[in-house]
Amino acid sequence: MNRNRPRPDLTRLFDPCAVAVVGASEDERRIGGEPVRYLATLGYRGGIYPVNPGRAAIRGLKCYPDLDAIPKPCDVAVIAVSAAAVPDLIRQCARNGIGFAVVLSAGFREAGGEGMALEHELALAAEQSAVRLIGPNCQGFLNLHRHVHCGFGSGFQYPDLRPGPIALVTQSGGFGATMLVRAQDAGLGIGYFVSTGNAVDLGILDLLEYFIERDDVEVLATFIEGITDGRRLRALGARALELRKPILVCKAGNSAAGRRAAASHTASLSAPYALYRAAFDEGGFVEIGDADDLVDAGRAFLGRRLPRGNRVVIVTGSGGAGVIAADRCEQYGLELAPLAEPTLGRLREVLPGFAAASNPVDISGQRSQSGHSVSNAALEIVLDDPAACQVIVRSKQSTHRPENARELVRIAQACGKPVLVALGADRDIEATRVLDAGRVPWHGTTVRAAFAAQALAQFSRKLERSRSAQPASRPLPRRDLPLASRSGTLSEHESKAQLRAYGIPIAVEAVVSLDEVPALKALPSGLAYPVVVKIDSADIAHKTEADAVVLDVRDNAALAEAARRVVARARCYRPAARLNGVTIAAMASGIELIVGVVDDACFGPVVALGSGGVAAEILRDVTHGFAPLGAATAREMIGRLRCAPLLSGYRGAPAHDVEALADALVRISWLAADHVGRIAEIDVNPLFVRPAGRGVLAADALVVLRAPSHDAPAAL
Amino acid sequence: MNRNRPRPDLTRLFDPCAVAVVGASEDERRIGGEPVRYLATLGYRGGIYPVNPGRAAIRGLKCYPDLDAIPKPCDVAVIAVSAAAVPDLIRQCARNGIGFAVVLSAGFREAGGEGMALEHELALAAEQSAVRLIGPNCQGFLNLHRHVHCGFGSGFQYPDLRPGPIALVTQSGGFGATMLVRAQDAGLGIGYFVSTGNAVDLGILDLLEYFIERDDVEVLATFIEGITDGRRLRALGARALELRKPILVCKAGNSAAGRRAAASHTASLSAPYALYRAAFDEGGFVEIGDADDLVDAGRAFLGRRLPRGNRVVIVTGSGGAGVIAADRCEQYGLELAPLAEPTLGRLREVLPGFAAASNPVDISGQRSQSGHSVSNAALEIVLDDPAACQVIVRSKQSTHRPENARELVRIAQACGKPVLVALGADRDIEATRVLDAGRVPWHGTTVRAAFAAQALAQFSRKLERSRSAQPASRPLPRRDLPLASRSGTLSEHESKAQLRAYGIPIAVEAVVSLDEVPALKALPSGLAYPVVVKIDSADIAHKTEADAVVLDVRDNAALAEAARRVVARARCYRPAARLNGVTIAAMASGIELIVGVVDDACFGPVVALGSGGVAAEILRDVTHGFAPLGAATAREMIGRLRCAPLLSGYRGAPAHDVEALADALVRISWLAADHVGRIAEIDVNPLFVRPAGRGVLAADALVVLRAPSHDAPAAL
Repeated sequence: MNRNRPRPDLTRLFDPCAVAVVGASEDERRIGGEPVRYLATLGYRGGIYPVNPGRAAIRGLKCYPDLDAIPKPCDVAVIAVSAAAVPDLIRQCARNGIGFAVVLSAGFREAGGEGMALEHELALAAEQSAVRLIGPNCQGFLNLHRHVHCGFGSGFQYPDLRPGPIALVTQSGGFGATMLVRAQDAGLGIGYFVSTGNAVDLGILDLLEYFIERDDVEVLATFIEGITDGRRLRALGARALELRKPILVCKAGNSAAGRRAAASHTASLSAPYALYRAAFDEGGFVEIGDADDLVDAGRAFLGRRLPRGNRVVIVTGSGGAGVIAADRCEQYGLELAPLAEPTLGRLREVLPGFAAASNPVDISGQRSQSGHSVSNAALEIVLDDPAACQVIVRSKQSTHRPENARELVRIAQACGKPVLVALGADRDIEATRVLDAGRVPWHGTTVRAAFAAQALAQFSRKLERSRSAQPASRPLPRRDLPLASRSGTLSEHESKAQLRAYGIPIAVEAVVSLDEVPALKALPSGLAYPVVVKIDSADIAHKTEADAVVLDVRDNAALAEAARRVVARARCYRPAARLNGVTIAAMASGIELIVGVVDDACFGPVVALGSGGVAAEILRDVTHGFAPLGAATAREMIGRLRCAPLLSGYRGAPAHDVEALADALVRISWLAADHVGRIAEIDVNPLFVRPAGRGVLAADALVVLRAPSHDAPAAL
Repeated sequence: MNRNRPRPDLTRLFDPCAVAVVGASEDERRIGGEPVRYLATLGYRGGIYPVNPGRAAIRGLKCYPDLDAIPKPCDVAVIAVSAAAVPDLIRQCARNGIGFAVVLSAGFREAGGEGMALEHELALAAEQSAVRLIGPNCQGFLNLHRHVHCGFGSGFQYPDLRPGPIALVTQSGGFGATMLVRAQDAGLGIGYFVSTGNAVDLGILDLLEYFIERDDVEVLATFIEGITDGRRLRALGARALELRKPILVCKAGNSAAGRRAAASHTASLSAPYALYRAAFDEGGFVEIGDADDLVDAGRAFLGRRLPRGNRVVIVTGSGGAGVIAADRCEQYGLELAPLAEPTLGRLREVLPGFAAASNPVDISGQRSQSGHSVSNAALEIVLDDPAACQVIVRSKQSTHRPENARELVRIAQACGKPVLVALGADRDIEATRVLDAGRVPWHGTTVRAAFAAQALAQFSRKLERSRSAQPASRPLPRRDLPLASRSGTLSEHESKAQLRAYGIPIAVEAVVSLDEVPALKALPSGLAYPVVVKIDSADIAHKTEADAVVLDVRDNAALAEAARRVVARARCYRPAARLNGVTIAAMASGIELIVGVVDDACFGPVVALGSGGVAAEILRDVTHGFAPLGAATAREMIGRLRCAPLLSGYRGAPAHDVEALADALVRISWLAADHVGRIAEIDVNPLFVRPAGRGVLAADALVVLRAPSHDAPAAL
């Protein structure tokens, strides 16, 4: 998308008074044949102006030789002609007051070579003419509320699609259409569908930013391979929480194989998935993995009720369906609510065979007496229990007959908690229409209902967090970097100086210059054995790899030997390296972590926190957050580590100084945020976390600077 | 299930010449009303004998007062009367030559109290009468090939279910019915369906063992909460590989919440999921998580082609669908096959815009010329590439029109490799019937197709492994346990003696008796510093918890001090403990692992191998195998550890002695297998794996013995 253009009002794009189709055709196998047919036959009430100089009429509609000739006003031109003709058509749009163009034509960037130049020309034409563009190389858009079918292909071919309060914006026309059609076939109405194609102008963020403000959109869904502005993605996530509108996001290109495929598909390498994930975690996003997830999460959110906590009650007519739902709930981090004694007492009244104080509430022994639904009765009882945040109900007695479904809807509507229905072996019959009308979400199996329940719980937790969030506050005033003109990797000693300036605790150390090494006989003052001895050189970033580190040096003889050894090894490893000397530092101990910052091209400075030691890369125990971090976010990052139990005191081991660790993360994040554009990377490895009250200690550090630039972004 | 009864021939159960329904009713809301109706109206061609003393006829069928009165022969009695009457009915069956009873009645074990006694009586009646039983408290069975509908409830209510070469056996009638109906609705025919209920006689293993031998069953599916005979489950898995028939297994009750729910549902606590998982991994099982997995894996296996390796090619009309499929393939451990240059050359001929040497093969730019399918052409080309083990194809040009689907079927049938079709936005229309007829598996999205591809690859890999497998061979002759009459936990020293007898390397150590401790001044001969000093007592199993271990003792003074300290701490920790003395052992080092054996009630002796150290339980890095282990299985267990890269030499670190580790696992497994019934547990913690060629060393060990019993199983 084009970052320099103003945020557009897209109302006339999606609700146009008239649509011109350039390259219109009678032949519906041609791309230009499809939109004319759909607009003409599927209920669109505005003007339809086929443009084709070779024809007088198409489908009984008067055909025009060019855009100059069509009646005015007209809001949208759908363009389906060869790529080379498109830039000039954009200028024609401008001349005729047509504010929006939807370019279906391919042959631009995706074709390489000449296409690349054409795309550049197209972008320029759009910018200069103030015409806003969807595409090129896209499938177009649908507004099913107004029967606006401006596109072609799989998402447009079925006449029976129904509108609903969901907007789906996709970077892949094909996979987006799959999601659209499969969701529609599962009964989920989607009002807006947009395929963004090459997105020379309007991209998915523009469209999501637009739709999230629309009153007729309650849920957004999107398929993303990659975006270029991570900060805007984060702002969108924050807006989603403000408006309580979830964005169901299917992010692809996350694995090594997937990233290669995406790079080949979209000709750009995106940021690592971990950073998207951090943005999704932070904002009002809910990740989905396929079309069925869109259906189940989408329907759950359309129920308009959110759980106030993590606890689920399962009411089931099948013990097995309850057991597998319990498995999934636990896997998703949901708890099965313990039921209160009064609840159990009331359950026993409707379930004479109900003995165990149990959730799942298994009603399987109870056949309905005189047509009254036992599962509905049980549902009503458990909804009353304060421990129940949401309820999954799966019983023939609730869904096999419409009258039972109507009763279920009454019970669910009388209560503020989500009620998720699983159909089990019941078919998607009349009862599902009753549930849909009552906005009670339904799903196939209890497994799918558990997925939906976690989607609701996840979003609700984020809302709660955002309500109580404090803005990230500075732990100290901005400090200038003392190295105004430097660039490249700083030495360990210089790197640590930057960290020290931001108040990050550094192990006591001294540097012995290269000249002094041969005569070194004792510890510099302020140090005590044991110590670690390592080379100090900006040219040797990986000291361990160079074997230029000696740990656990315990006496003067060993010290002299170690100092000479690390110099010799450094010379051997990289003869041209400039050696400052030898660093002698107190041996630190504690739980070993790694803290890194990378100034990502898409997301800006990102702080990574991970398990340290040799297992670090094998376990891939890393969490990410965006600089600057607030203390609460830093604590959350720590809590998400798999090694978090070690920090908080595992099996009687002492608790470690998690507060000091959070503080160090905040400070490192401010160091990066204050010098965004200048600091390319920070690597603190290891950072030792010591027992509670004794703080943390950075034992090694590297800072990589970029050359100063006059147009670097302003510091925060 | 009843272990003592002979393996039954169930042919007459599933294909009966006649069926009696005891408790038959005209009212189809009654359980006894359903089977009569289904048998009478859905095409069953054998005799139908309603039994109800109060009626002369039901649904136009003559009604009989009791089983003595019905015409003979009759193979099956479906029983739907009150529980108390059931045991006598079984005796009536026997008297009348009715070999099988399907007991739908509830009110047995699941009802507790009196029901428990009734169930016992029922089991006894069945055993004494030689009548074989399904149920009680079950939904019955279906043989759709022969229109035998002997059951009630959700799985039986729809008249349009179609047979197919799949047998589905379920411990949950409700969830089983869900799987059955959802699979049928997705177009997957299932020929046999059995709900086993309380399984007093025939259980899921009996039924699976029966169906796997049937020629009209190609794929088995099952829902399991728990079984009691893990060895039979393993034998079934081995048979599945012999016959090349996969068993799709949905195992529930795996999480803490799920196990609690299952225990409440089936009144029994099952073995940990990890042990089931080990059995599934080893045998011809493919795990599924829900009804949709049954559909996609089931359809894939019905394609009757297996990949000869891990490599997949994706041919896609949508770049995005290719990207997300690539993600999933990698996540599932599949590789995207690199295409050979001749393949790429041929692809360029049909795809003029195809520039990148890439898989996924993205044909999205190419519209079909003159109706010829570009995706089918690309499919045919990539199938020829030796690197392609299977192909996922997703394109409108392959599935939107039946003639394209017919061409696709011809291409797929001409080739021995699996071709998995994803419909994308295409609906399940005529083309899917063409694909079904041609046994070409189809799926909704490429994500689902990737799931199916991994199911095939997984099964194929197991077949390959079973073909090359060596039987587990003894590394040494059986050794008697020298502790014939002991039971309970052995001391560390005694425990190590058992390990040593089986050739497992133990750290050099000496025990100093309690009397000698005060006078201890130097190391016992054969030891060198540094050493570890620890208490030796059978009453103190957790020495670290007792703080009765001192590591890294480096000289005589420290040794004397350490020995006195551990004795003092042991006395303080457990004053009544009998102390043998102090163990002094060489400090071992290397990668720290834990090896355990538990003699599981269901699966017999199971070897667990896990990461050691303080992080062991946090990381839950554990793999399991059944004793005795073959060397190949031991190596696989090692390879499955998350810390396996550390063992094999990570980032230039030295490789460790994986062969010695595998040998130690084999030996420990034989120690357990040779003394099954006597050895309850073995715990080797830590076992140090040293650099390659230097072996492993058990640094601590505990063996727990059971009291000798005369009816202990014979050793292997």
